[in-house]
Amino acid sequence: MGNNILAGKKGIIFGALNDKSIAWKVAEKVSAEGAKLVLTNTPLSMRLGTIDQLASQTDSLSIPADATSVSDLTSLIEKSMEHFGGKFDFVLHSVGMSPNIRKGRKYEDTNYDYFLKTIDISALSFHKTLQVLYSMDALNEWGSVVALTYIAGDRAVFGYNDMADAKAMLQSIARNFGLLYGRKRHVRINTVSQSPTMTTAGSGIKGMNDMFTYVDNESPLGNASAEDCAGLVTALFSDYTRKVTMQNIYNDGGFSSMIPIPWSSKTTE
Amino acid sequence: MGNNILAGKKGIIFGALNDKSIAWKVAEKVSAEGAKLVLTNTPLSMRLGTIDQLASQTDSLSIPADATSVSDLTSLIEKSMEHFGGKFDFVLHSVGMSPNIRKGRKYEDTNYDYFLKTIDISALSFHKTLQVLYSMDALNEWGSVVALTYIAGDRAVFGYNDMADAKAMLQSIARNFGLLYGRKRHVRINTVSQSPTMTTAGSGIKGMNDMFTYVDNESPLGNASAEDCAGLVTALFSDYTRKVTMQNIYNDGGFSSMIPIPWSSKTTE
Amino acid sequence: MGNNILAGKKGIIFGALNDKSIAWKVAEKVSAEGAKLVLTNTPLSMRLGTIDQLASQTDSLSIPADATSVSDLTSLIEKSMEHFGGKFDFVLHSVGMSPNIRKGRKYEDTNYDYFLKTIDISALSFHKTLQVLYSMDALNEWGSVVALTYIAGDRAVFGYNDMADAKAMLQSIARNFGLLYGRKRHVRINTVSQSPTMTTAGSGIKGMNDMFTYVDNESPLGNASAEDCAGLVTALFSDYTRKVTMQNIYNDGGFSSMIPIPWSSKTTE
Amino acid sequence: MGNNILAGKKGIIFGALNDKSIAWKVAEKVSAEGAKLVLTNTPLSMRLGTIDQLASQTDSLSIPADATSVSDLTSLIEKSMEHFGGKFDFVLHSVGMSPNIRKGRKYEDTNYDYFLKTIDISALSFHKTLQVLYSMDALNEWGSVVALTYIAGDRAVFGYNDMADAKAMLQSIARNFGLLYGRKRHVRINTVSQSPTMTTAGSGIKGMNDMFTYVDNESPLGNASAEDCAGLVTALFSDYTRKVTMQNIYNDGGFSSMIPIPWSSKTTE
Repeated sequence: MGNNILAGKKGIIFGALNDKSIAWKVAEKVSAEGAKLVLTNTPLSMRLGTIDQLASQTDSLSIPADATSVSDLTSLIEKSMEHFGGKFDFVLHSVGMSPNIRKGRKYEDTNYDYFLKTIDISALSFHKTLQVLYSMDALNEWGSVVALTYIAGDRAVFGYNDMADAKAMLQSIARNFGLLYGRKRHVRINTVSQSPTMTTAGSGIKGMNDMFTYVDNESPLGNASAEDCAGLVTALFSDYTRKVTMQNIYNDGGFSSMIPIPWSSKTTE
Repeated sequence: MGNNILAGKKGIIFGALNDKSIAWKVAEKVSAEGAKLVLTNTPLSMRLGTIDQLASQTDSLSIPADATSVSDLTSLIEKSMEHFGGKFDFVLHSVGMSPNIRKGRKYEDTNYDYFLKTIDISALSFHKTLQVLYSMDALNEWGSVVALTYIAGDRAVFGYNDMADAKAMLQSIARNFGLLYGRKRHVRINTVSQSPTMTTAGSGIKGMNDMFTYVDNESPLGNASAEDCAGLVTALFSDYTRKVTMQNIYNDGGFSSMIPIPWSSKTTE
Repeated sequence: MGNNILAGKKGIIFGALNDKSIAWKVAEKVSAEGAKLVLTNTPLSMRLGTIDQLASQTDSLSIPADATSVSDLTSLIEKSMEHFGGKFDFVLHSVGMSPNIRKGRKYEDTNYDYFLKTIDISALSFHKTLQVLYSMDALNEWGSVVALTYIAGDRAVFGYNDMADAKAMLQSIARNFGLLYGRKRHVRINTVSQSPTMTTAGSGIKGMNDMFTYVDNESPLGNASAEDCAGLVTALFSDYTRKVTMQNIYNDGGFSSMIPIPWSSKTTE
Repeated sequence: MGNNILAGKKGIIFGALNDKSIAWKVAEKVSAEGAKLVLTNTPLSMRLGTIDQLASQTDSLSIPADATSVSDLTSLIEKSMEHFGGKFDFVLHSVGMSPNIRKGRKYEDTNYDYFLKTIDISALSFHKTLQVLYSMDALNEWGSVVALTYIAGDRAVFGYNDMADAKAMLQSIARNFGLLYGRKRHVRINTVSQSPTMTTAGSGIKGMNDMFTYVDNESPLGNASAEDCAGLVTALFSDYTRKVTMQNIYNDGGFSSMIPIPWSSKTTE
């Protein structure tokens, strides 16, 4: 159960596939905190996953939309406003995919059509979402938008491939659109840079198990789970954080602020 | 009214002088959210200020302590544990003072005895507090400590004088102690970098009015107030943010993530 | 005259249009320091500009190439290796263009075909250049690559539009490719984040005069000129900086490390 | 041999103990590049080390001075100006010591008298040096000051103890004094954040061998040596970098810009 800190708020959650998804945990959490939701994902992900179960569980509407399509986004937001009876308050962007990674292309052997797709899906989709929200004036004053990112957007992580460049751009979009949307409607836009997380997408990455365990071991508090991420995102959607914007907030048990030293990772004295 | 997100939690608030203090607003907010408090400040500040009123209002115990004195801190924490009936959950450090600023000494004409006092009061007091907490094992698992800082710790701000260097050190202490305390007790330690705020201390700084107005005007969301700060600190004390540690989180309406351009500070198109 | 610090080194300079270009100043400087050069730009820019004059002045070969075309880049590097008689030592990437800015589209009214072009020209061209260099093993051990960027890649600057996101990605590419190329051939890859500069491209941006003057006035050392940039790039190509890699180095008179305060921008006491 | 890039320049080098010192390598390098030098260290270090050999080798004057003593610094700078026949151009600050580390006190069991000494020696000595230079107007226009730092000033490194906080403050001092000295005399002030280095001081730190090897292995270019540091410092003293100020420049083979992953530290494909 929650504390009702999102009572009366309404929003859209992008990217819940199944109950391992961060977006899924966020939907459960914000719903438990009193928010009303629209859930969205691509038509394919909706078929592959179990989003209907989440919609039923949280009493939400689910609407398929390809986040790279401005017309899909426009329709999604129109329907959401209809569903909510007007403007709404928050959006979670949890969208990303790299064809280069999927097809086993290495960073130094990038396929550039794939690269542009990575960008379009993983970064530009965020700009498109914001631009449609902005042009339709769909968010209430002091609304809050969060996109999920990863430390590879700030420092090179071997194997994260072109997703790193997409995340760097995503973080930049949060800053640049945050300036405009903040001025216009006091909407705040932040990114949350999350620990490696064992989602279905995450589990598919080669070496992910090793990475997860290593970072979990090094981080003073251990890795942040999907549930932990849901907690932080809830706080960022709430009125407790009204003046936090254009920031990249690490939810990672401290990993980003230290140098991992394998032989002393648990030493306290 | 609150949402009871700190129900069952107990903690110490350093630095409330009067109802303009950030620490005052934090005390009111966390109390409204269900927390039990001990309030502390120097004996002199207690006499000059109105902390007893706050103690009465929030049903708290107030205990005088000089945060630069390890024996005062030890006694404070002993009495707090007695009062709380054991370990507690959070601490706010809102302590800072520069004799160089008070006496009108410029940064390029620093008095070094004063400088060491600035460091002792504004940065080392935080280390001392943490060290006493750690050695007395006074905080519960997943406890949360926050210290207040300012952007001058990261970038040069003309006129902020040796407080800038003290804040840089304070932020470093949060990281370094956060590593150890995180490993030992999952205690998280963060700093909040706050907009210029019209506290009694802040108002005393030459040029503060101009600075406040300028930054307020440039920040996409305007300046974060003391109340806004209380909201964020409350979130950081709560279980919504359990894996956030060793971070410096800007609560500044976006100012830190942009370049102020005076002639276009309100332009959105 | 120079000190011959690049004696025996050879490299390619992208992006010299005319004698206002940063790339032009770099070419002059590195040539004066003993380096041999290949100059390149798009065929159109070669016709519009005066690169032949620079080629003649620095005894360089000029080769047209579209930096978004892998086949053009391949041909450029083949011809360069032929010209140099083998591998070479450095590359300057000074390439960027935003159709959205050119056509007056605002950031909140982005045309996404244009956006992808901005990315392709201003960021992906850097990845393509590196990938072709890497796959052809064209650079000598301890070679050095520099790309030019701007503070908008790190903080929101009103009016810099989608170039900001492209610069954020460019900086990310430098880190990610720097990891791989460093491991493989000890090649270092850095970005230089330059003050606003009155190039032909820069002068075309609306409000550029005001911005240039404002930043020049606020920066403790004033703006870095194109000649200043040439000095730093020369140092980064030289053996004086062999272990500096994957960094973004500000060449900006200090602007990035301070908060501009218009009414005290020249105050020292 | 050098390229004479410091011809006609004069400066003071703090902190050369013996031929393993970074300051020693800097002195050799800048001397080879045409600069005239004054060497300084504490009287004790002068006796324990072999600075006279360096003085003779580089035709320099050596002057004992305790960098925590304003009167020693004043005398040092007076004598230097006499020796040079007037103002001079550069200063290297390579000074640091932690009594807590020396006496085996852990960070969570800090002795606060020692802590203040760490600060005074390792950070405040830099402010004192700058303040004396500034008040005596001892540096030429476009002079250049560099202080050595370590990544622990930015991120927690287990075992680096209170030196981490001192380095954070040192970097802050560079920014804050850089603002003033830049405005007044176009003097630039930077810090160089160096790889672990096997100096006499470094070798004395527990676990240093392991740390050196680990970081060397992870860094794409390997660790920067003392000689590498001398190269970068020389570049920063030269006119090639006239507009670089208030920056912290990593000289670390890329380590700071990546996440070390022990099992893939040499993987390139």
